[in-house]
Amino acid sequence: MNIFKQSDIQKVVKVNRETISGIEDAFTSLANGNAVMPPVMRIDIEEYNGEVDIKTAYLKGYDLFCIKISSGFFDNPKLGLPSGNGMMLLICAKTGVPAAILMDHGYLTDVRTAAAGAVSAKYLAPTDVHTVGIIGSGNQAGYQLYALQQVRDFKKVLVYGRTNERVEKWVRNMKKTVHADIDIAESPKDVVHRSQVVVTATPSKEPLLQQEWLHPGLHITAMGSDAEHKQELDPGILTHADVLVCDHKEQCFRLGELHHGLEAGVITQEDDMIELGDLTSGVRKGRTEDGQITVCDLTGTGAQDTAIANFAYHELRSRNMGMKLD
Amino acid sequence: MNIFKQSDIQKVVKVNRETISGIEDAFTSLANGNAVMPPVMRIDIEEYNGEVDIKTAYLKGYDLFCIKISSGFFDNPKLGLPSGNGMMLLICAKTGVPAAILMDHGYLTDVRTAAAGAVSAKYLAPTDVHTVGIIGSGNQAGYQLYALQQVRDFKKVLVYGRTNERVEKWVRNMKKTVHADIDIAESPKDVVHRSQVVVTATPSKEPLLQQEWLHPGLHITAMGSDAEHKQELDPGILTHADVLVCDHKEQCFRLGELHHGLEAGVITQEDDMIELGDLTSGVRKGRTEDGQITVCDLTGTGAQDTAIANFAYHELRSRNMGMKLD
Repeated sequence: MNIFKQSDIQKVVKVNRETISGIEDAFTSLANGNAVMPPVMRIDIEEYNGEVDIKTAYLKGYDLFCIKISSGFFDNPKLGLPSGNGMMLLICAKTGVPAAILMDHGYLTDVRTAAAGAVSAKYLAPTDVHTVGIIGSGNQAGYQLYALQQVRDFKKVLVYGRTNERVEKWVRNMKKTVHADIDIAESPKDVVHRSQVVVTATPSKEPLLQQEWLHPGLHITAMGSDAEHKQELDPGILTHADVLVCDHKEQCFRLGELHHGLEAGVITQEDDMIELGDLTSGVRKGRTEDGQITVCDLTGTGAQDTAIANFAYHELRSRNMGMKLD
Repeated sequence: MNIFKQSDIQKVVKVNRETISGIEDAFTSLANGNAVMPPVMRIDIEEYNGEVDIKTAYLKGYDLFCIKISSGFFDNPKLGLPSGNGMMLLICAKTGVPAAILMDHGYLTDVRTAAAGAVSAKYLAPTDVHTVGIIGSGNQAGYQLYALQQVRDFKKVLVYGRTNERVEKWVRNMKKTVHADIDIAESPKDVVHRSQVVVTATPSKEPLLQQEWLHPGLHITAMGSDAEHKQELDPGILTHADVLVCDHKEQCFRLGELHHGLEAGVITQEDDMIELGDLTSGVRKGRTEDGQITVCDLTGTGAQDTAIANFAYHELRSRNMGMKLD
């Protein structure tokens, strides 16, 4: 068994066309029924304000499958620790023998999540995007922006976050690597009005975007909600979309924006619902007209984890990185 | 983070009164509502005849909680590999930070499973046991016997297994460490007739013990069934027991003998059902009369894993064993 540390993983895995293409393949496997993906396992530790998610998926044709443990302990900053943590285990799909531990501390999740945002925009955003709007100013907001650069040329970025200092710091960081003007917006409404693509990347528990703000030619990727209590979109947005897509139907009906749509009674589990894999496999079409409103609900799938972890493993091994254990 | 290897773990964790007592505490926590234990996660990889289970539980008062990955790949012997594999991760319950990896290859599962058998016999077997019957001749059958020695003095062991050579080898091994006469029985029926305590420890998919064989003063621990398709007991045995106990109601209704009882329509989810933790906490009584027939259905819980993994971790750390990783 091999163990790999975050710094090595960060050297060999980046948000780029190769990883985005790998994530497209994972979605295709999911949609084609070439995946075994049980529901997310979750442990809530209320007394320490913590939550742990376990995701996994076996994808046919991949040597290894990933079991990912990711946690959020929201009192950690008081202890001087980051809230989030994560690691991936890789298990041989033919024998069950543990092959590797990727001590990525959530980095590979950041990459595969951003890559899904890029896949969403690739098939759903208008061809010409002038302004990208970002709601949120955390790490993932930045990764989403890097990923969007791989699939669309845009000139301007508008960002909104609740805490001024945090947003300003985020803008300073982004300016180093993103080739576009970056401005801070006054409100989420302002962001939506002035953008053709909007990505929400927050841990919000209530809708940040309202249905009234939608305009022709808008694409929204909502990637923040990955648990029952999280929500970024007014459920009315789901019914006003001309094309509504999600990463995984069953999971989004449990954990994503679709879950709130069900609760609000504006959609049903019987509704025709497009998955990202239907787009990547060519079975369904994404945006077909410039004026359409498109929405994508991402909850993050074990299939993406297995794809990115396999990619990382083979890159690391080919460079003789990592440490071998008994 | 620390990583511990199997040989070190085997040095410090044994089937003994200390570990059995630790497993009793875990059941008490479960029954008292001091545990968060999500349903078992399962990945079936049919094309390689493999299955992977993920179990976890947070127990209040324990520093760390365990996430256990265990697998069975039944074509492995053809490749010269053992079918089973397993490892445990220990995560800090206050911060979510990974604390340790126990590369135990299933050893701690063997110990905590045998310990549950001992807990079952402690509260349910008659005080005087002359003969213990074992159905099955795998590793776990042996561990169950070691564990029973800690809670009852018995003079004789009767074992039944399908493959003669395997049973004979098992008997030779057991004779080295078990202070009792060990004989091979002709049939499961023979075992039941001549024993006061019977433990079934097989991967059987159909009932091995029949209701007609029950006799006053018998205790049965059925520990083999931990998946929907596994079964060791004729469901009629469940209704003919004077005291019917399980390790975890919800899990046994899904995966254990109780599951087959539900399917056969002989029990319902509303039936009064005693959990092992009701016995260890003193809330309910086990056997109250010598002539009673008692049955215990074990599926193996994440709570046991968290208890045994904490115990192992503290023993290993106090001896400065293991390897520190970044």
